[in-house]
This record gives sequence, structure tokens and C-alpha cells, in this order.
Amino acid sequence: MIRAGIIGSTGYAGGELARLLLQREDVEVKWYGSRSYIDKKYASIYQNMFKLTDADCMDDNMKELAEQVDVVFTATPQGLCSALVNEEILSKVKIIDLSADFRIKDVEVYKQWYKLEHGSPEYIKEAVYGLPEINRAKLQRARLIANPGCFPTCSFLSVYPLVKEGIIDPNTLIIDAKSGTSGAGRGAKTDSLFCEVNENIKAYGVGVHRHTPEIEEQLSRAAGRPVTISFTPHLIPMNRGILVTAYASLAKDVTEEEVRAAYEKYYKDEYFVRLLDNGVFPQTRWVEGSNFADVNFKIDLRTKRVVMMGAIDNMVKGAAGQAIQNMNLMFGLPENTGLKQVPLFP
Amino acid sequence: MIRAGIIGSTGYAGGELARLLLQREDVEVKWYGSRSYIDKKYASIYQNMFKLTDADCMDDNMKELAEQVDVVFTATPQGLCSALVNEEILSKVKIIDLSADFRIKDVEVYKQWYKLEHGSPEYIKEAVYGLPEINRAKLQRARLIANPGCFPTCSFLSVYPLVKEGIIDPNTLIIDAKSGTSGAGRGAKTDSLFCEVNENIKAYGVGVHRHTPEIEEQLSRAAGRPVTISFTPHLIPMNRGILVTAYASLAKDVTEEEVRAAYEKYYKDEYFVRLLDNGVFPQTRWVEGSNFADVNFKIDLRTKRVVMMGAIDNMVKGAAGQAIQNMNLMFGLPENTGLKQVPLFP
Amino acid sequence: MIRAGIIGSTGYAGGELARLLLQREDVEVKWYGSRSYIDKKYASIYQNMFKLTDADCMDDNMKELAEQVDVVFTATPQGLCSALVNEEILSKVKIIDLSADFRIKDVEVYKQWYKLEHGSPEYIKEAVYGLPEINRAKLQRARLIANPGCFPTCSFLSVYPLVKEGIIDPNTLIIDAKSGTSGAGRGAKTDSLFCEVNENIKAYGVGVHRHTPEIEEQLSRAAGRPVTISFTPHLIPMNRGILVTAYASLAKDVTEEEVRAAYEKYYKDEYFVRLLDNGVFPQTRWVEGSNFADVNFKIDLRTKRVVMMGAIDNMVKGAAGQAIQNMNLMFGLPENTGLKQVPLFP
Amino acid sequence: MIRAGIIGSTGYAGGELARLLLQREDVEVKWYGSRSYIDKKYASIYQNMFKLTDADCMDDNMKELAEQVDVVFTATPQGLCSALVNEEILSKVKIIDLSADFRIKDVEVYKQWYKLEHGSPEYIKEAVYGLPEINRAKLQRARLIANPGCFPTCSFLSVYPLVKEGIIDPNTLIIDAKSGTSGAGRGAKTDSLFCEVNENIKAYGVGVHRHTPEIEEQLSRAAGRPVTISFTPHLIPMNRGILVTAYASLAKDVTEEEVRAAYEKYYKDEYFVRLLDNGVFPQTRWVEGSNFADVNFKIDLRTKRVVMMGAIDNMVKGAAGQAIQNMNLMFGLPENTGLKQVPLFP
Repeated sequence: MIRAGIIGSTGYAGGELARLLLQREDVEVKWYGSRSYIDKKYASIYQNMFKLTDADCMDDNMKELAEQVDVVFTATPQGLCSALVNEEILSKVKIIDLSADFRIKDVEVYKQWYKLEHGSPEYIKEAVYGLPEINRAKLQRARLIANPGCFPTCSFLSVYPLVKEGIIDPNTLIIDAKSGTSGAGRGAKTDSLFCEVNENIKAYGVGVHRHTPEIEEQLSRAAGRPVTISFTPHLIPMNRGILVTAYASLAKDVTEEEVRAAYEKYYKDEYFVRLLDNGVFPQTRWVEGSNFADVNFKIDLRTKRVVMMGAIDNMVKGAAGQAIQNMNLMFGLPENTGLKQVPLFP
Repeated sequence: MIRAGIIGSTGYAGGELARLLLQREDVEVKWYGSRSYIDKKYASIYQNMFKLTDADCMDDNMKELAEQVDVVFTATPQGLCSALVNEEILSKVKIIDLSADFRIKDVEVYKQWYKLEHGSPEYIKEAVYGLPEINRAKLQRARLIANPGCFPTCSFLSVYPLVKEGIIDPNTLIIDAKSGTSGAGRGAKTDSLFCEVNENIKAYGVGVHRHTPEIEEQLSRAAGRPVTISFTPHLIPMNRGILVTAYASLAKDVTEEEVRAAYEKYYKDEYFVRLLDNGVFPQTRWVEGSNFADVNFKIDLRTKRVVMMGAIDNMVKGAAGQAIQNMNLMFGLPENTGLKQVPLFP
Repeated sequence: MIRAGIIGSTGYAGGELARLLLQREDVEVKWYGSRSYIDKKYASIYQNMFKLTDADCMDDNMKELAEQVDVVFTATPQGLCSALVNEEILSKVKIIDLSADFRIKDVEVYKQWYKLEHGSPEYIKEAVYGLPEINRAKLQRARLIANPGCFPTCSFLSVYPLVKEGIIDPNTLIIDAKSGTSGAGRGAKTDSLFCEVNENIKAYGVGVHRHTPEIEEQLSRAAGRPVTISFTPHLIPMNRGILVTAYASLAKDVTEEEVRAAYEKYYKDEYFVRLLDNGVFPQTRWVEGSNFADVNFKIDLRTKRVVMMGAIDNMVKGAAGQAIQNMNLMFGLPENTGLKQVPLFP
Repeated sequence: MIRAGIIGSTGYAGGELARLLLQREDVEVKWYGSRSYIDKKYASIYQNMFKLTDADCMDDNMKELAEQVDVVFTATPQGLCSALVNEEILSKVKIIDLSADFRIKDVEVYKQWYKLEHGSPEYIKEAVYGLPEINRAKLQRARLIANPGCFPTCSFLSVYPLVKEGIIDPNTLIIDAKSGTSGAGRGAKTDSLFCEVNENIKAYGVGVHRHTPEIEEQLSRAAGRPVTISFTPHLIPMNRGILVTAYASLAKDVTEEEVRAAYEKYYKDEYFVRLLDNGVFPQTRWVEGSNFADVNFKIDLRTKRVVMMGAIDNMVKGAAGQAIQNMNLMFGLPENTGLKQVPLFP
């Protein structure tokens, strides 16, 4: 039995972690951390779990947590996890951080985009970027995992094979992303009210969204040289889902078959990445509630560009599901344990 | 391994059956019946199941099906299942009919509300009404189950204890129901278009909805005398969920505690019926994607009435989930096998 | 030129007032009151009015306002208007209060349901309940108008003729109401977030909603005797619209034609109340963005009840549009001046 | 009094034309053409206009129509208008075609993208592309207007000044567009059902959407040389609205002020094009129900690209509103007559 703790369990990502872990018989959630709701019944906050857990919300005491559990998920704003991590903690408990604290290797880039001092820069190097499709072996040995952002996960998986294989010029990459509203979190902000989001679409963070350097870092590694991209997220009136539409110029003459072969080279053995059939493009509804990432592409001969598309559920493969996938790796379990939910439709 | 067949597998209820059964390791779906899509890949219709099944759609051949499977689900329009059932079929295979063909014991009432001749009235008596919370023992021995309608399931579970215990006068019952749009099916009708349903609410079938006699029959049985109710469904701009708000006059002076005790008497051991805490009322989001029915009530002393409320996912407890709950009973399995999904939120 | 001021102009109802008044050439909004946004450009809060007004948000100074305008709309929480009204103010300016302060004649009932002391009970008697369909003559002479609540407007118009004509027993009235989310206001509350409202329906204020005594007072007047009703509102995942489904027992034998004649008796000359054709039931989409109230009914011979239905746009006929209809009456203008918008669909 | 006829009046664009024209006192709709609903009351199809028009639906008889009206709007599938136009008709009546028949000057391009023979290629040259912001003078003298597509209107207005002024390299243009579902029309297709669109986002027509050559033709004219672009539309779960996010490489070093000045050069006197304040980006909710096009831009120095954004209501500026704007020009009326609706929010 794996004993797990969640810090930030009453946010949407924390709630999704709890929801997914409650369905497992080999994991027990021992600690539902939530500073805002201490001593309240967790199931009174997330009524969907009524009768399924009787636990109370707890505070953030990482030291105490490290004694009681085997793995801690931090589903908190940036800055919190990096302030709590130290050698004593890491010697006792595995940590999967869903915030951005350990995602970016260059701490100056982190400071510049997040406007925060980093609380424990000495652990950035050790932390493993939690995208199993590229870091599987390292993740199995990790003590500290930086769980990827929702947009970076979907963006990276959509374009990775073509960057890696040199099929596209990565510096021509334009990533136009669309996200459901759960990505904005459960905070009570006017901009997230039903009447503000419903019947509306908008771009936000144009040119300055914090997921940009995270995507660039991973793509630079794949390309073997520095990559700079355009990234624009949009807010969509739906609860869950991210769709990425990425555009890039072809770096060489290729056929549909060659491009498809590149995707297959990297994804054919990946349970969670589904390369769709020719002409079938990703839609968020086909992955909702699941850990799948659906990808596909279209070559446009008129413009010598390729359009790459990907869809994930931002709460699952974009957050809690991927965190659990990482946990499975850390504990030597089959990677899809507890993550075989068939997408919910309609 | 239970071998299952689905007739009508490309409708929404059929798709939900496939989705739920695909997550089980003790059931294999051997037959995806769909007259409209014969020979097409099932996963090309329901792309959520891409890579999870490679099956083709098949026709409706019940005779052939009865040779190949242990249980057949008919998720079809009324009239089809009753035309296919006969002694030979029933001797070989268990049938769970999601249509209304076998729900109503009085065939004249069936004809009057459904405007159909019944194809096999000789089996109406044998068919068991598939609400496990009241017919568990009979269902375990059944060959033919009439899976309840979505509105009747939610309506009945919301009011049953108070009718049974004589706390309300059942002939004062007014049931105002609200349903997500998946209840209207996957047929291409103008009235079901996104732009017609979104940003709208309407009542429909006012005074003539076919689920009325089904609710009345079950309530009459509970009350021990004929019950006539008012029932009005409404269409809500959401995919899934039914909320029932039921009103009735109190038949005697009762306290909150006494009413609560009545609910607990019938539901305290029911896994799928959750009586919510005092003052917490059902919401469809807390049951979405699950087989739970959440219920609660409020006494209004000013009017000497009680308001009874219930919420289900119309695709799960209102259709496919309940059908699987019934299948579990038929095959001697724990009733909640494969049905422990925690509701999806948000 | 009528000079108008709005206190509470940055709430949804205030925004709708501004939107509707900006389309008129005979009205000028001179004062956009909003304590939260003082000195900010009004059009930076409501970007839909960008380039259409250059005004800044102002404070709540009623004394100053009374010097500058002919009519003040108070679209504020309860308690504010009653605290600002006095003889000096009323001698200088007409007031249309969109809050509940002057709707209820019995100040004790107000205190009990609103948990507030009333700030100027001496004006309750003078204030005219602003439902033109029943109080037209008084409204033309009024200094102070209590603009009706959204649910009371829709509920009352749906059932009024049958109460007035004694066709139904008003004490059997059960009003099940459904509202779009703009009715919850623009305050940043978790319960109003997109992800909490979308894909959900819930009842709220069961048995205790403050619009109950307002509806009862108006129905009691119509019936000529005290009326007590059941009223339950529900929150619907849409921006605008209220649908009322009301149930009552028939007090006598009547035909469809007689009931229809009763509606026509009261509404045939009303521009804003549309009695729909036989068998066509109200839907909120058919009134969205307009000041119309669509009503119709269905007799249910099985239960000897009648189902009465009504639909309005809660922001227009349920708030700002009705307030302007009242303003038109106060200033001797044709009642539908500036209110002839054809409902927006889809 | 302008007498107007609408062919295709029961589609969404036709319904919007009727809705907008019904609010005018200087226009009378004399002919509601609809082959599908001949002899039915128009207001029984569009119940929002109940009591506002008593007209019946008529057939498509252009010859008869030309005798009775001053202007005909054809809101029909491609191919119909071009088949009905001839010299006799054009000598009697002005025609505003909302289909694509006369938008593209090169009939071979039309054939290639629309897979149709053109019914009257001899009139393509005469037809004026109905974007008043660039063709105002010609439109005032036109007999036949090709009303622009919804995506081309929004795309073109978003990028035009920067193409015209040579600030961007037009062949680097990537236009990622997002549309509400009314753009898919009122036809009963499974793909347009509520449950298929709600909680989903998808790209469609990737690389092959028919609006591509229309955008390219207009941009080529603006650039003075052939322009080839990437264009990808997406379907959004909302009724109305188009948002365009366009990306292009800067052709020279420019400041924010210089780019802003370019927009102002072309739009400062345009009533319907609103260049938003610095840092405020277009959102569809701020233009809903209005004829406005909101535009803005953001320079990204990291990538030497500029992101250009625009929002319109696809039913108004993208179809019916722009058609009426064109009618106003044809009849010598102020261009915004009947089009001053303030956007509806929320």
C-alpha cells in the first residue's frame, strides 16, 4: 500500500488527484492538505467524494507529512514546494511537484518569467522533468519530480517527433493553444465567473505566458539547439481539455508517410499517446477524463508548412493523471496502473 | 469471463455501455450491434475508444448473438427488443432491455402511451423491473430485465421512502425534472442542435411524457394503491445529469428527523444511493460519470409540503450503469463491480 | 432629453441599464455610480460599450445626483436605496429601485426574510410596485418605484389571470423556477465560477428564497385573500433567462378555451406579454435580450391540475428592461420606447 | 420605405437578417423565402419574432421577387444565387448575396475550392466585394454585392493595416480562427448536436477550408502581390462569435506606436472597427449581437513576430449585419442605420 499526501488538495488539480487515487486499491491518501479548509470534511468541499472518504482537511506540515506518507504531491501555487524541500524531507519521502518550481533548469529564466526568488535552487538539477514519454528511466530513480505544465505537455507531445527528427524548423513554431476553464483554478475571480467565460473566447498572456520557457527548454533539448517559439493560450467555455494547434515550416521535403513514420517511431509503444488515423484530428471530447494524449498532423503543400495537433484533458494528462503516471514509475508499478479510464463521452 | 453483446451500440446509451464494459477485465464485449454503421470500426464512431477496441459494427441478429454471448443489452428504440425475444433466445442468453418494452406491466397502458403494439406480451409478466434497490432478489434470478427509464429511476429513488412509509400523500406528487441533452439521443434533429439547446431551457412533453405511467406504476406498488402524478421534464444545456425536484403534501405531522429516518431505513445499506447531509441538496455535477443517486429533502412548514430532490447521471444510473448493476446481480457478482467510478468534477 | 443616473452601474443589472439606455436618443446617462470602480472608465469595466461612452465611474452621492439628473436607478444590494431616500431627494428626482427595499408592504415581512432593518419605512406605502401590467396608472404618477424581482415578475405573469379569475386554487400553487446565472450577480464567488455552474443544475434557497413573500403578496392581492405558495429556484448553466413552471389544482371545471380566454382578457393589449399559440410552450431563447414575457399553459385532465409556464430574460423584463418600461411610464412616453429589441437567436 | 426580400430566410443568417430588419421602421420585409417551410408562419420557425411578423414562408421565385422588392438578400448555399441572377433581374432589383458565389474573382479558383460550376460567371467582375471598410465607394454604386464570409471579414480586418503598410511579411501569415457553432448552420447534422459540440474543441477543414482563397485574394490586393497563408478554423462551444489570432513576421523594425498608428490610419473613422486600448485584447463577448469588429495587436520582440487579434459576431458583422451595412450604402443611408445595437453582455 502506497501512502500518499496531497498539499493543495482543494484546488482543482488536488481534487483530481484525490479522485483518481480514491479509485485505487493499492494507494491510500493519508493527508488532504488545504490551508483554506483546515478541519473541514474533505468531502464537504468535493461532494463528489461524499461517502468515499471521511477525512478532514489538514495543514501544510511537510515535516509531519514526511513521517506519515511515502509520496507527497504538491498541487500548490509556485514558490511553495521549493520552500518546503530539503535533504531531510527528500530522504524520507518522494515528492511530485505539480507547480512550476522545478521545471525550468535555468533559475534566472524561472525568476524572470515567474517574478519569484527560488526557494531551493540546489535541487533544480536533481529534479526530473516528469514527462514519462521522454524521461522514463530517470523518473524511475527520481526523488523529486517536476510535473510538467498542462500546455507544455500537450504542446511538446504534439510536435516532439518532428523537432527531434529535424523535419520542421523549430524556430518557425507557432503554438496556438486552447484550454478549458478548469486551468484557471478554483480561485474566486471575476474573470472566471460563469457569465464571463460562457459564450466567449479570448486570448490571454499573449507573448508573456509562463509556460513559454518551459516549452522552449524541452524543445531545445529535443532539437539540440536553442529554440524560440510563439505561444498563445486561449480560454474556452468548457470545463476540461486542451487543444494545441501548432504550425511550423518544413525543414525538408517529406511525404505524409514519412511524417507519420516519425510520430510512430516515438509513440508506437506509448500507451497514453494515440496517433490518430490519417485525416482524423484530435478533439478534446475524445480524451476527457482520461490520461490519453491524441495527436495528428496535416502537411500543407501550398505553404510548405505542417500543422500539428494534440488534445489532452488538462486535469489528467495535463496535471493529476501525469503525476500519478510518474508515481507509478517511481514505485516500479506498470505505468498505466489506475489510469485506464476510457474517456467520458458525451 | 462474461461475454456481452450490445444491440444499438452507437447510440449514447450503447456507447456508455461499451465505455463502462471496456474498463472491466471480467467482461468482453463480443458484439457491437449497429444497423446504421455495419462494418465500420466501432472506434471510428466513438473515437474515445480508439486503440481500446478494434471491433467492427455488426447487425442486429439476435439469433446469432444468442450463440455467442452470455448477455445481450438492447439499447434501442421501443419495439425492437420485444420483437426479438422468444423462448429459444431466452433459454440461451440473458437479456437486459434498456428500452421501455418490458417496463410496464399493463400492456394497454403501454399501447396507449407508446402508440405501439407490443411484440411479445407473453414475456411482460416474467420481465423484472431493473431497479436493484427494490427488486434485488428477483433480479438475481431474472432472464429478462426491463432496465428502468432515466426519469423514473431518479424520480422513484427521490420519493420512494416517503411514499412507502405513508409520510406523503402520493396523489399530491408533482415531479419537476430537468435533464441533460444526452437524454435526447444521438439522432440528428434540429431541436438537439447545439445552438438550439445552448442558452435555453424549455419544458417538453408536458402532461404526456411516456415516463409518467412508469413512475406511477412503481409508486402505486410502493403505496399499495393507485397513484396519479404530475410529471414535467425540462431540457437543460448540459451533456449529462438529471435533477428531480418533487413536491408533495405531508400526510401527517413529521419532524426532519423522522423523514430522515425514513430515507435511512431504505437506503442506509445501498452503495449507490447517497442520502446527503442535512441542508446539502443534490447537484448533478456531484454524480457525473458515476452510478450514484444523491437524494435529500426539505420540509416546508409554511405549506405543509416536503420538497424531495434527487440527482443522477442519466447515462449511468439512468441507463448503462444501472444495466451493468443488473448484469452484476444476474451473474452473482458484487453489485458495484466495475461501477466504482468517483464522479468527475469539474 | 431625460437625464439618468445609475447607482450600482457595474453590476450586471446596472450594466444592462447602461446598455439599453445608451441605445436611446432621448435619454442621457449622466452618472455611472460604482463605489468599487471610482474614477475608472466605465467602458473599461464593460468593454462592450467601448467607444460608446467615455464616462468615468462615480461614487454614490445621491444628494449630488438629485441635482444633476431626472431619474435615478438604484441597482444595488438591499438596504442601500432605503437608506438614501428622503423627502428632499424625492422632491427633486424620480427613483426606480431595482433592489427589494420597497417591494414588500409589510415591513415585518421584509425584516424577517431579508434580515435587515428598513432604512425608510415611511416611504414603503408610497412606493409603487413596478409591474406595469397591473399597476400602470399608479406608475405614471409615482415618485418612487419598487422594480419587481426577476422571479416574481415571471411567476406572477405566468399565473396571474388564473388566480384573478378564480380558475385555480392559489394555495395549491407550486412554482418551480429556473434561472440563468447572471441572476447570481457579478460578485466573485466560488459558487458562480464557470466550472462550478457549467454541466450542473441545482436547486437553491429551497423553502427560504426571498422572492417568495414578494410573489405571495402580489398573488394575495390578485386573489383577494392570503396566498401561500411553494417556490423553488434552480441555477441553470446559461447566462440569461428565467423559465417558470407552475402547477396548481383547478378550482372548477374549465375548458382549454376558457383558460385561454382568461389569459387573453388580461394580456391581449399588453405589448410585452405574449400568450403563445396552443401547444407552443415558452423557451428562454425566444425572449433573450428582449423585454417580452412569453406565457402559456396546459390542462392535465388526469390530475385536474393546470401547468402554467412563463419565460423572460431576467436581465431585461426581470430587471433593467422593466425598470425602463417604468421610466417610460413616469415620463409619459410610450411604454415600449427603447424596448423593441427583437429577441436574439441563436 | 425599402422593400426587402430574403431567400433562405429560415437558416441562421436569414433569421438574423429578418431579426435586424424587423427593428427598422424604414425597411419592410416583403418576402420570407424558404423552400423547406413554404406556407408555414415564419414566426412559428423563429418564435422570437412571434407577434412581430405574421408572414408566411414563400418559395424562391426570384422573378416574382424582383417585381415586389427593392433588394434581395440570398442567404443560401453556394450555387443558388449565381443560378438566379441575370440582366433582367439585376435591372429591377439590387442583390446582396451572402453565399460565396461572387466573392472570388478567379472562377477557376472558385471551381477548385467549391467543387461547383459557376452559374453566371459573366457577373463576377461586376459584383463588388462587400467589405465597406475597403470598398465603400464601389458599394454605393453596386447592383450586385458579394457579402464577405465570416472568417474572411474577421481575418482581413485584423491584419489589413499591417499588410497594406508593409509592416508584416504577408506570406508568413498564419491565421488561427475560432468560431461559435451558429457558423455551422441550422442543418440537422450529428456533428452539430449539442452533446457533440459542448465540452469540446476541434480544428476542422485543416488546410482545405474554402474561406482560404477568399482571404488570400483580398490580402493579395492589399499587398500588391500574391499572398499565400495558413488558415485553420476551430469549432467553439458557444452560439456566436469569431476570434481570429493571426501571426506574422515583422518585415521591418517597428515600435508599438508605429503599429498602432497603422491601425489608426485605416480605422480611426470607421464606426464599426474598434481598435482597443493598449494591452486590451478582443473577446467575442464584447461584440455579441453587434456589428462591431474589435481589433488589437501585440509585438513579440523575442520572435520578431506580431500577433494580431480580432473579434466579431459571426451572425452580424460576419453575415447579416454586414449585409445590412451594404444595403445602407446601396440606398444612400448612413452606414450604421439600424446597426447601433450595443453588444449584449453577459
